[in-house]
Amino acid sequence: MFLTRTEYDRGVNTFSPEGRLFQVEYAIEAIKLGSTAIGIKTSEGVVLAVEKRITSPLLEPSSVEKIMEIDEHIGCAMSGLIADARTLVEHARVETQNHRFSYGEPMTVESTTQALCDLALRFGEGDEESMVNRDFLSNNHSSGLWLLLVCCGLRKGMGLGLSRPFGVSLLIAGHDENGPSLYYTDPSGTFWQCSAKAIGSGSEGADSSLQEQYRKDLTLQEAETIALSILKQVMEEKVTPNNVDIAKVSPNYHLYSPSEVEAVIARL
Amino acid sequence: MFLTRTEYDRGVNTFSPEGRLFQVEYAIEAIKLGSTAIGIKTSEGVVLAVEKRITSPLLEPSSVEKIMEIDEHIGCAMSGLIADARTLVEHARVETQNHRFSYGEPMTVESTTQALCDLALRFGEGDEESMVNRDFLSNNHSSGLWLLLVCCGLRKGMGLGLSRPFGVSLLIAGHDENGPSLYYTDPSGTFWQCSAKAIGSGSEGADSSLQEQYRKDLTLQEAETIALSILKQVMEEKVTPNNVDIAKVSPNYHLYSPSEVEAVIARL
Amino acid sequence: MFLTRTEYDRGVNTFSPEGRLFQVEYAIEAIKLGSTAIGIKTSEGVVLAVEKRITSPLLEPSSVEKIMEIDEHIGCAMSGLIADARTLVEHARVETQNHRFSYGEPMTVESTTQALCDLALRFGEGDEESMVNRDFLSNNHSSGLWLLLVCCGLRKGMGLGLSRPFGVSLLIAGHDENGPSLYYTDPSGTFWQCSAKAIGSGSEGADSSLQEQYRKDLTLQEAETIALSILKQVMEEKVTPNNVDIAKVSPNYHLYSPSEVEAVIARL
Amino acid sequence: MFLTRTEYDRGVNTFSPEGRLFQVEYAIEAIKLGSTAIGIKTSEGVVLAVEKRITSPLLEPSSVEKIMEIDEHIGCAMSGLIADARTLVEHARVETQNHRFSYGEPMTVESTTQALCDLALRFGEGDEESMVNRDFLSNNHSSGLWLLLVCCGLRKGMGLGLSRPFGVSLLIAGHDENGPSLYYTDPSGTFWQCSAKAIGSGSEGADSSLQEQYRKDLTLQEAETIALSILKQVMEEKVTPNNVDIAKVSPNYHLYSPSEVEAVIARL
Amino acid sequence: MFLTRTEYDRGVNTFSPEGRLFQVEYAIEAIKLGSTAIGIKTSEGVVLAVEKRITSPLLEPSSVEKIMEIDEHIGCAMSGLIADARTLVEHARVETQNHRFSYGEPMTVESTTQALCDLALRFGEGDEESMVNRDFLSNNHSSGLWLLLVCCGLRKGMGLGLSRPFGVSLLIAGHDENGPSLYYTDPSGTFWQCSAKAIGSGSEGADSSLQEQYRKDLTLQEAETIALSILKQVMEEKVTPNNVDIAKVSPNYHLYSPSEVEAVIARL
Amino acid sequence: MFLTRTEYDRGVNTFSPEGRLFQVEYAIEAIKLGSTAIGIKTSEGVVLAVEKRITSPLLEPSSVEKIMEIDEHIGCAMSGLIADARTLVEHARVETQNHRFSYGEPMTVESTTQALCDLALRFGEGDEESMVNRDFLSNNHSSGLWLLLVCCGLRKGMGLGLSRPFGVSLLIAGHDENGPSLYYTDPSGTFWQCSAKAIGSGSEGADSSLQEQYRKDLTLQEAETIALSILKQVMEEKVTPNNVDIAKVSPNYHLYSPSEVEAVIARL
Amino acid sequence: MFLTRTEYDRGVNTFSPEGRLFQVEYAIEAIKLGSTAIGIKTSEGVVLAVEKRITSPLLEPSSVEKIMEIDEHIGCAMSGLIADARTLVEHARVETQNHRFSYGEPMTVESTTQALCDLALRFGEGDEESMVNRDFLSNNHSSGLWLLLVCCGLRKGMGLGLSRPFGVSLLIAGHDENGPSLYYTDPSGTFWQCSAKAIGSGSEGADSSLQEQYRKDLTLQEAETIALSILKQVMEEKVTPNNVDIAKVSPNYHLYSPSEVEAVIARL
Repeated sequence: MFLTRTEYDRGVNTFSPEGRLFQVEYAIEAIKLGSTAIGIKTSEGVVLAVEKRITSPLLEPSSVEKIMEIDEHIGCAMSGLIADARTLVEHARVETQNHRFSYGEPMTVESTTQALCDLALRFGEGDEESMVNRDFLSNNHSSGLWLLLVCCGLRKGMGLGLSRPFGVSLLIAGHDENGPSLYYTDPSGTFWQCSAKAIGSGSEGADSSLQEQYRKDLTLQEAETIALSILKQVMEEKVTPNNVDIAKVSPNYHLYSPSEVEAVIARL
Repeated sequence: MFLTRTEYDRGVNTFSPEGRLFQVEYAIEAIKLGSTAIGIKTSEGVVLAVEKRITSPLLEPSSVEKIMEIDEHIGCAMSGLIADARTLVEHARVETQNHRFSYGEPMTVESTTQALCDLALRFGEGDEESMVNRDFLSNNHSSGLWLLLVCCGLRKGMGLGLSRPFGVSLLIAGHDENGPSLYYTDPSGTFWQCSAKAIGSGSEGADSSLQEQYRKDLTLQEAETIALSILKQVMEEKVTPNNVDIAKVSPNYHLYSPSEVEAVIARL
Repeated sequence: MFLTRTEYDRGVNTFSPEGRLFQVEYAIEAIKLGSTAIGIKTSEGVVLAVEKRITSPLLEPSSVEKIMEIDEHIGCAMSGLIADARTLVEHARVETQNHRFSYGEPMTVESTTQALCDLALRFGEGDEESMVNRDFLSNNHSSGLWLLLVCCGLRKGMGLGLSRPFGVSLLIAGHDENGPSLYYTDPSGTFWQCSAKAIGSGSEGADSSLQEQYRKDLTLQEAETIALSILKQVMEEKVTPNNVDIAKVSPNYHLYSPSEVEAVIARL
Repeated sequence: MFLTRTEYDRGVNTFSPEGRLFQVEYAIEAIKLGSTAIGIKTSEGVVLAVEKRITSPLLEPSSVEKIMEIDEHIGCAMSGLIADARTLVEHARVETQNHRFSYGEPMTVESTTQALCDLALRFGEGDEESMVNRDFLSNNHSSGLWLLLVCCGLRKGMGLGLSRPFGVSLLIAGHDENGPSLYYTDPSGTFWQCSAKAIGSGSEGADSSLQEQYRKDLTLQEAETIALSILKQVMEEKVTPNNVDIAKVSPNYHLYSPSEVEAVIARL
Repeated sequence: MFLTRTEYDRGVNTFSPEGRLFQVEYAIEAIKLGSTAIGIKTSEGVVLAVEKRITSPLLEPSSVEKIMEIDEHIGCAMSGLIADARTLVEHARVETQNHRFSYGEPMTVESTTQALCDLALRFGEGDEESMVNRDFLSNNHSSGLWLLLVCCGLRKGMGLGLSRPFGVSLLIAGHDENGPSLYYTDPSGTFWQCSAKAIGSGSEGADSSLQEQYRKDLTLQEAETIALSILKQVMEEKVTPNNVDIAKVSPNYHLYSPSEVEAVIARL
Repeated sequence: MFLTRTEYDRGVNTFSPEGRLFQVEYAIEAIKLGSTAIGIKTSEGVVLAVEKRITSPLLEPSSVEKIMEIDEHIGCAMSGLIADARTLVEHARVETQNHRFSYGEPMTVESTTQALCDLALRFGEGDEESMVNRDFLSNNHSSGLWLLLVCCGLRKGMGLGLSRPFGVSLLIAGHDENGPSLYYTDPSGTFWQCSAKAIGSGSEGADSSLQEQYRKDLTLQEAETIALSILKQVMEEKVTPNNVDIAKVSPNYHLYSPSEVEAVIARL
Repeated sequence: MFLTRTEYDRGVNTFSPEGRLFQVEYAIEAIKLGSTAIGIKTSEGVVLAVEKRITSPLLEPSSVEKIMEIDEHIGCAMSGLIADARTLVEHARVETQNHRFSYGEPMTVESTTQALCDLALRFGEGDEESMVNRDFLSNNHSSGLWLLLVCCGLRKGMGLGLSRPFGVSLLIAGHDENGPSLYYTDPSGTFWQCSAKAIGSGSEGADSSLQEQYRKDLTLQEAETIALSILKQVMEEKVTPNNVDIAKVSPNYHLYSPSEVEAVIARL
């Protein structure tokens, strides 16, 4: 049985006889080894909180970035392989800037999440240009040079995907014309909208706690407190401004300064 | 015997000695794990109904999209890998918009289904540009720039297919010059037109019920009731506006609001 | 022995020590699982008749297309993988339209068959542009834009072939300057001209019957009757307008309406 | 030992420790299964005669083409995989037409044979453009468009070769400034000039008979008689105009009509 | 177990069932065989110190470059495969020069580190052009020629990554608008900012010593002394200007001359 | 041991643990099966003599070309796979013509040999354009069209090498500004200059005889006699103008007519 | 254990669990089979001396080139696969000529060595254009044609690397603005600067002798004598001008004539 399983793993993107994609399942295992991250949506905005594993006192806590800005109205928390997450975030940043450049308005949170998942799905050797293509049809381009420009862009896109699944889950918090929203993505390229969600090694316990404590009418401040108190439960160490990060999108992305984090800790 | 079978699976798109394509068969297994979806065609239009698995109360039911709009006259319900389905739907959306742009008229439901299946067939490393090519021959292009544009488009198309079969079945509901129609596609890239069809984990039982209850002269309202009552049988939970979605195409695509779903549930 | 055989199958397009190409032989097995199709040539035209397997009463019989038009003077019946057949037919349709566009005359039936087989032969990663190339040499192209157009076309052609043999046999019926003709193709890319031929699961018995009953001076009506009576023998169900399709090319392609099929059945 | 052999077969174009290329040897086996073909050169011209295996009375004998015209002064007989032979012949036809177009004179028989063998040698993923390249250097091209044209041609050439050896042997008969000539090619891409040669399943016996009966001063008519009488010995059936084809190049290619074949049979 | 492990190694960039990437882990092993390097950040600047293994008295110590300049404000120390490190450094040098050319200002240390890690992540067959792409959007290019130039650049980028992970860790020391900073990268393409860090075969012991001796208020001179005294502990030989290199970035990169190294040694 | 060996053979161009390239060694085996060829350099010019295996009296001896002209001042004799040798010779012919075209002077014998070996070395999927590249730098091209022309040429070059080593050894005889010279190449892409050399199945004995009989002051006529007498020893049949070929380069390439060969035989 | 090892060898460029690259280690074995070469740097210049294995008295000693000129101020001695070395030297020659062409000055010895090692590192399928790219940025190109030219050049570069490591070590002797220098490269693409170094089958003993006899104040003449006396110890035959080559770079490359070699031998 196990031997059969290893047979299937070798083809990076191949179905097993039961209709499963093992490489995607193994990538999900990689996330279970990651640090815990929590997102909570309120009517005032979305809160993200993450555990940071500071393995040495000589490590700069601020350089362990587990929460990153995508655009001024979108941020994300991650768990899993950091380098993979950076590639996805970098991709999303280019997409949202392209969108602003082409349409003069911010990209919606759902479209941004979709763009991220398009890239995540296409491991192997795909590309992810369908969105760019639509720009082609709806814009009037003024010159041939611009076409060449995009033409190069298309080529460049090829190969942006990895040859394996991205080993990372993201919690994407944003605020657009539909108000605040929170999305959760996994390595298969699927995404769901949630009111609250935990990912990473402590996600199981954290998810139960979230279901108990979540209410639709939470204030942003209550959400901060809940997120951090749950994180505290799943972390083995004492919570300090050094080993957690908190950010909110309400309506703009803001990463809490150490003193702001300290203030939330004080409220626990 | 089983060992021999694993030998063939490794070549993604290879015949076995009995003339079978195992990867396609395994992808069909993936769909048997999916949630149930039902489509019923009436003379007034087509009804689609799907089960939504809401694994956590914190998940936004509206973000579990199992019914999606392709064009204003075409919608589809899906079962299997959601991320794969999104890629196919995205592709179909581009195709239908291209068609409107080139010909000033909506694409027929059959052509749209064919375009989807062309992409589904060509897993491995094919492309799916034959349709675009015909546009070349039947239009007068006004400038060289446009040619370059399409030229880039052609290149881009390469690699849009996955390196494995798409692990998804679709029920495509539409309304065009030939009236309402319902198509069913499988991972091999084959499609059939049906008067009623169920896909996903409960499809076997649901198909029998459909054969018993289907009549050519069903009203759209009767079809709604039948679809939901059959879905109710195959679902393990109580049916609520949160865990089912209903849509109709008559003649335009319309996804039911929670209150509209509630009204159908009330009729059961 | 059998083990040795599986060794050779993995190389998609590789000779065995006895000089055999196993993947092609396995594709031929796929056809033996297909529904039966029969073609009969007469001096008045060619008749095609196919069995349609309607697995559910909810399936639209008209959407189970086993006979398709290639051009107004050419049609074909198929047995094997339907999605593969559609790709071949789509390819042939583009080729015949290209020919009309370039030369202002219909493509001959043999050239069309050759174009189909060129594509079928080149599984692996070939292309099939030799025909396009000849157009280059014999036409005067009026502008550089047209060259770019074709240039794109050439690129597009790459990858149109599948990475495995096409799992389908075709009976190609046509009428051109040489009168009516019937061609039979197999997955190896070989074709033969026949006066009558059966393919699919019932082909063995049907071929014997055809040899007994075929006469050079058959009328088109007699051919219809013979084709359907033989189909009736190999089918397990009662023949109805729902589970068979009949078409003729004399000199234009015409797919029989249900009432026309009913009339032929009545003559049995 | 045998196992070792299968190891080497998998690399399509790889030497064994004894310096052998097994895939080429296996392709040669494919030819030993083919029908017999005979060529005889005389001072008046060259005669080609082939056995046609008509497996069913419903098969059109004229569509079993085992002798084909390459140019008006060159024809060839084949044994082995017919679809492979058609690709080679198609290639040779383009080459000879290119030559006429570029130089205003027919291509020599040896150059044509060399062009065929260049393609045959390069199985795997080679191309065969060295000849085209020389045209580049020796002609004055009048415009940039022409360059683009050829540029496309170059690209197209890639992939024309198969991913395995061509499973076919050819007897190439021609007449050029050096008078009549007969060439024999095998799947390794090697060719020899002969005065008489047999290929296919009956080649061994036929070759001995040819050595006995061949004389330098044969007339074309005597050559016809010898070729057919030898063919008669190796065929299991009675020779009829339906199951043999005869052609001559003297100095132009001419395929014998059934009545002309009948006349030769009558002389036996 | 071990056998299973070797199975996974063959796919260069594939997850194991536990969610691990073995090739990256093996590359990390390569670094454990490398010479020791130490970096210490102070408010005055950053100090880098490396062990140089001089295997023969005939080797020029100065040619064993384990500390290299990236830009005038950035330097790096390396441990692992020297040739891999050179490729990364070369890449970083081009990136920082591109940045100066495009924006007229030095690249920040973090962006430079990110660019290095983008390349390191994409082993297999990725490219690393996302940064170049952003230049496209934020600059006004004056001519088509420039576009062609970049267009070529994009192509060139493909293949710059290796087909395996880069077997090297880097300590990147720099000084930009945010003051001095020290980054540490590993073969997975991840990076961290540190106040002090050791890599290579002696890193374990060196890291403990660093944690004991590091203080935020170290002077640059104290940092030099600490770095060299720790290096002395992990090296088997006597420390001489021949077998260690020291460099500082404060604010510009400076590699110590033998006499400057001698002066530090004298202070121990 | 032997099993280990077969493991290495599969990677076409891979070192074994002892640092050997087995595919090259196996290709050398292919030459040991070939017919014998001999080359002798004198101050008057170079003599080449080869055994021709005429397996059938119906084979035209003149079409078994084992000595071929490369340019008017260079010829070569070959042993091994004839089709491979033809590709190399064809390549050398293009190179020497290119050289004459670009520089207005004949290519030296060493440069020609180097160009051949560059191609031989790059089996797998290399190209051999470095020479063309230098032309780029040293010539003034008059127009953009010419650049496009060469640009196409570069592309074409790709894939000219085979996917395995060339299974052939060559004796290259030439006469240039340095006087007469004789080169010997093997499948590894290495070459040596010799005063006399034998290759093929009889090379071992022939080489000993050459060492005994060679003198620096041989006349061309003496060299002819020695070459043929040694060939006679290693051949199993009687030497006739039909089964040997002789050529000289002094200073131009000349292939001996049957009567000239007869004259040399008479002198034995 | 050994079996595990063979597993890793197949991936050409893959880490073993211990962090080793076996193909590179095997290539280093190939060099241990090569002839011995020695380099010695003095303040007056650098001396290179190599053993030449003359396997037959009929081989021209001068054609066994183990010392080659790269540019007028750089030469190199080699041990290992001669054909591989020629490719590297050819590459270095193009690079140094490009440098002179672009900058009007000779390339430094270190940059030349780096360019060689860039190519050596990128076996598999890399390219080595980063240097060319910098030219782009620092030069003013006068026309679009030049850009196209370079554009082609970039493409050409792809594939110049081999699909395995280069099986050769080089001793690179040069003289530039920094005076004389001697570099040593190995198949991993690493290089070191040395004052004296031996490579090849006799390198172990020769290296010890060099360490004993080397002094910084050696004259060029003393270096010649030492190099040859050490070569004499490791060679099995008597040293003659036929079986050794000597060259110096002081400041220009000069290969010793037989009489100059004789003079050095006389001094032993």
